[in-house]
Amino acid sequence: MFIGHRLQFALATTVQARSETVADNVNSRWNGQFSCYDLVAKTVLRPRSVVRVGDIAIGGDEFIVMAGPCAVESERQVLDTAMSVAMAGARILRGGAYKPRSSPYSFQGMGVEGLKILSKAREVTGLAIITEVMSETDVELVAEYADIMQVGARSMENFSLLERLGTCGRPVLLKRGMTATLEDLLRSAQFIVSSGNPDVILCERGIRTFETATRNTFDVAAVPVLKTVSHLPVIVDPSHAVGVRALVPVLARAAVVVGADGLLVEVHPRPDKAFSDGEQSLTFDQFHSMMRDLDPYLGLRQQADRSFAAAGGFD
Amino acid sequence: MFIGHRLQFALATTVQARSETVADNVNSRWNGQFSCYDLVAKTVLRPRSVVRVGDIAIGGDEFIVMAGPCAVESERQVLDTAMSVAMAGARILRGGAYKPRSSPYSFQGMGVEGLKILSKAREVTGLAIITEVMSETDVELVAEYADIMQVGARSMENFSLLERLGTCGRPVLLKRGMTATLEDLLRSAQFIVSSGNPDVILCERGIRTFETATRNTFDVAAVPVLKTVSHLPVIVDPSHAVGVRALVPVLARAAVVVGADGLLVEVHPRPDKAFSDGEQSLTFDQFHSMMRDLDPYLGLRQQADRSFAAAGGFD
Amino acid sequence: MFIGHRLQFALATTVQARSETVADNVNSRWNGQFSCYDLVAKTVLRPRSVVRVGDIAIGGDEFIVMAGPCAVESERQVLDTAMSVAMAGARILRGGAYKPRSSPYSFQGMGVEGLKILSKAREVTGLAIITEVMSETDVELVAEYADIMQVGARSMENFSLLERLGTCGRPVLLKRGMTATLEDLLRSAQFIVSSGNPDVILCERGIRTFETATRNTFDVAAVPVLKTVSHLPVIVDPSHAVGVRALVPVLARAAVVVGADGLLVEVHPRPDKAFSDGEQSLTFDQFHSMMRDLDPYLGLRQQADRSFAAAGGFD
Amino acid sequence: MFIGHRLQFALATTVQARSETVADNVNSRWNGQFSCYDLVAKTVLRPRSVVRVGDIAIGGDEFIVMAGPCAVESERQVLDTAMSVAMAGARILRGGAYKPRSSPYSFQGMGVEGLKILSKAREVTGLAIITEVMSETDVELVAEYADIMQVGARSMENFSLLERLGTCGRPVLLKRGMTATLEDLLRSAQFIVSSGNPDVILCERGIRTFETATRNTFDVAAVPVLKTVSHLPVIVDPSHAVGVRALVPVLARAAVVVGADGLLVEVHPRPDKAFSDGEQSLTFDQFHSMMRDLDPYLGLRQQADRSFAAAGGFD
Repeated sequence: MFIGHRLQFALATTVQARSETVADNVNSRWNGQFSCYDLVAKTVLRPRSVVRVGDIAIGGDEFIVMAGPCAVESERQVLDTAMSVAMAGARILRGGAYKPRSSPYSFQGMGVEGLKILSKAREVTGLAIITEVMSETDVELVAEYADIMQVGARSMENFSLLERLGTCGRPVLLKRGMTATLEDLLRSAQFIVSSGNPDVILCERGIRTFETATRNTFDVAAVPVLKTVSHLPVIVDPSHAVGVRALVPVLARAAVVVGADGLLVEVHPRPDKAFSDGEQSLTFDQFHSMMRDLDPYLGLRQQADRSFAAAGGFD
Repeated sequence: MFIGHRLQFALATTVQARSETVADNVNSRWNGQFSCYDLVAKTVLRPRSVVRVGDIAIGGDEFIVMAGPCAVESERQVLDTAMSVAMAGARILRGGAYKPRSSPYSFQGMGVEGLKILSKAREVTGLAIITEVMSETDVELVAEYADIMQVGARSMENFSLLERLGTCGRPVLLKRGMTATLEDLLRSAQFIVSSGNPDVILCERGIRTFETATRNTFDVAAVPVLKTVSHLPVIVDPSHAVGVRALVPVLARAAVVVGADGLLVEVHPRPDKAFSDGEQSLTFDQFHSMMRDLDPYLGLRQQADRSFAAAGGFD
Repeated sequence: MFIGHRLQFALATTVQARSETVADNVNSRWNGQFSCYDLVAKTVLRPRSVVRVGDIAIGGDEFIVMAGPCAVESERQVLDTAMSVAMAGARILRGGAYKPRSSPYSFQGMGVEGLKILSKAREVTGLAIITEVMSETDVELVAEYADIMQVGARSMENFSLLERLGTCGRPVLLKRGMTATLEDLLRSAQFIVSSGNPDVILCERGIRTFETATRNTFDVAAVPVLKTVSHLPVIVDPSHAVGVRALVPVLARAAVVVGADGLLVEVHPRPDKAFSDGEQSLTFDQFHSMMRDLDPYLGLRQQADRSFAAAGGFD
Repeated sequence: MFIGHRLQFALATTVQARSETVADNVNSRWNGQFSCYDLVAKTVLRPRSVVRVGDIAIGGDEFIVMAGPCAVESERQVLDTAMSVAMAGARILRGGAYKPRSSPYSFQGMGVEGLKILSKAREVTGLAIITEVMSETDVELVAEYADIMQVGARSMENFSLLERLGTCGRPVLLKRGMTATLEDLLRSAQFIVSSGNPDVILCERGIRTFETATRNTFDVAAVPVLKTVSHLPVIVDPSHAVGVRALVPVLARAAVVVGADGLLVEVHPRPDKAFSDGEQSLTFDQFHSMMRDLDPYLGLRQQADRSFAAAGGFD
């Protein structure tokens, strides 16, 4: 029931048309190989997908904000955050129950207890739940609790996991790998779709560069490129992209004006006490300010999309 | 008379204050060494510089657009472009008379003839002129014709050239090197300032990454980071950043909303016939559409800057 | 019975000693955090580990060559290759039964049939078997057939897989991720060791850079750095590092003289017909020539190690 | 009189032959554009160039070591170093009189005084002199004192400087830029040659990567790739490539066995007191040990080159 669309295989003539569009909209030296992502490619017949989660439509006209803590730490923390972000306009609650453990000694998440807390927050607030799955063997369990399955940057090329997500019955948010190209990202998306799950959401979360002033480098052009070549929705995670709390709201603005379909943002009741990613988590007040700050930019989107198209843009 | 300000050496207490701001606004692991860019650093006493070129103030309240062809190819081409971009709202005409020659056989620019054509375009349109200088031995000559001296990405660490520009009597627009960090950029800016020229404008033009869908990766976060740590104006070159005509206008939007002080954009009467960079040059119509598209975003800047500041932002 | 050593926790005083060695032998700005790889760190008490596979000792005095096709394609192909590489001096047969599938349509390996073919080649030739495992759920099955479990570059941060390999009862060869730092590699190694498996072999296989003349950039300095900071054996995969057949033998030489404990090399009866990686696979004749070419360099190792130590080197 | 060869323009048929060789020896996806470096390309008619400096032949059968301090600091320092490295077998003395000044406050070199000290060391020891030139306006002056003009990594794309070096009457050692591809390096070499100076020596000095354990990443494969596609001599600078004293000798070994024509090494009487690059400078004793360590590897070169060729290698 979460499946909002069915794949229709594009006719050769349509693909041809799309191909010409791509030639205009991306670097002519791009080595993208169409056959590796044809199921997720934008065509005349399939210009855009909408992924539905209950009454939430990702990739439609509404700009969808997913917010919450990096990690589930306690029921109190999650419920407080959920209520606060819901009031500010978020539609989906994020929170990690299983954490990537780049050191065996760092916090590894609360596991199934964390999933139950997220589930309780859904009951209380009506927010849908997105949470990360890192292991094939956890897919079934996580799918019982989550509305959207998140694949982290480190797992973007974990093909066994991607294949397993093809039959999990939930939409998948796929994060770009730390040094992955957009073609790599589209290939991984295709992997999930060809394994049976058409509901994939792409997520730009910054790439690794030599710059050290920010945690990663937010590739803002990734959004219009992906919207040009693929029919999938595109979400931006400004928290990981920049890694610095004070810069999150201004990057969120950039995401809005380049055509992203939504945001994934870290919010914590007490960022200085967070188990992980405190530096990049917004306080409740900062999140509310950010949402108000975005309003006028969102107001411009419809008219702007028209004038951008007139300027040769992606739609 | 182009010199809009004089350096005042910041007091230790002021620097302390600035330092705390930086700690909040950039990655805490940043290896920036303050002493290498203290003359260009933002402080309580010097929060912002305005570089003046005639009646144009770069870094002030107005958003300044510099536009024109990659290379000066003919008087007709330059005059037509100058009139068109002036009508659309540009204040400064760009155009290369000396071109970086990554191959000895590619077009090397028209040299002094090109400078004379630019000069004539200034007379006709009232636009100020920005043009690249690549060689120490050309500095004096170029300064006779140009209002702003452009230092290209390949020259960002040509310290002999930077030192010579310290006494050229013209403002300098300094482009970020292809894999330079923001600290590298600030060090080069400091080099010009410490050589006697306080009028430096920083320019983000994309960095080299593994992504191939775009020519470079536009580091949109560079703008708020630079505006946070430095008092210098920051200009964005979306043409080189993305390398694809159709994406230039949408990146220009992003530049506006993250706080850039202006744009440097390639425009050509017949991009398909351009000697260089045709792929990323806008037609006159596209440039006009882009300028109209930016209007409502520029309209939001003043109010937005207030709400962003409330959210913990850079001002 | 494949376990050649037991971990002894280093005393604090020993660690101190090691720490001083590291300060001399790696970049003083290195951000390595000792606590994240202390179990694999070189100390006075544990200067070197030897991983034993039957009568083969990896990390001891013998230089161990692992060779074979990228993928198991047929019994004929594997048996011919196994006999040829055994005659030339290889001790271990490589061959993939499960392949990373960066496209869902590329060859995915023969699976358990492939494992059986490898097993048969072991019976016939006496070579030990190394083969890749990509999925947690395949660990048990692969461990039934393989003598060494290979973790590919894309899986270096698949922590669920690493954890599962901690109890697989087989040594693990861990490949460096495509843009992983050496610290990242050591953290992943620590993950396996702390999960219960001390028999980890590190593998340098080239990193992604902007260079396009070679498939990856072989980081030859990684070998002496790893041998300086870790007690684990270090193997070099010149085939993936360079991606071009004709350059494999010369890079193998470099691996020998910088102190690698062995090689992992792709060899195929008909590289031009290979299902994957044909460009970088050696023919039988080329492999034999390479092995003869390495002989005199291997002959120099003992004496060289002494003079290198005198020059301040790693031992 | 330093000019050891004259360019002969390769016949089309010869180029064709070379082209096929390249296809075998480098990545088939390489984007090298032959016309941008045809003057420096290896052909049947010009398989190899020898650059002569007095009685020293670079690119011939002898392995040429250039050694000395990063910067000229005093006559005592330079003379002591020159005598020590000459006794150990170096043929050329390195030392910077003009230093790149990434900060305006760091040591900028002794200038012409430094050149005079180098000149005196040449008289005393018979060593030839290599020193860096960073500014077009210094070319004539530096050429009066130096036997080889060094172009630093930051200047590799300073085309005005390269053009000026085309008529300087001295051989040029051209260092690879910090993130330059080998094609970029060859284009810059072509620039010097096409400006009139055929005596160019290429230098691999490590490239910037995400690795932090070493200062740069020594791209050891660059040596055989360059020897395959170009007729120019190739020198390795292990000091900058790795940035850590203890690793310099082992990388020098790697340079020898992959076919480099020589080394450029930093040596200082008291590295801990050096004005710059002390961390990577060898003491006199370490340099002598390194030279003795290299002897047996150099002894293997002639026979090795034959067997490598048999294995499909570069000659």
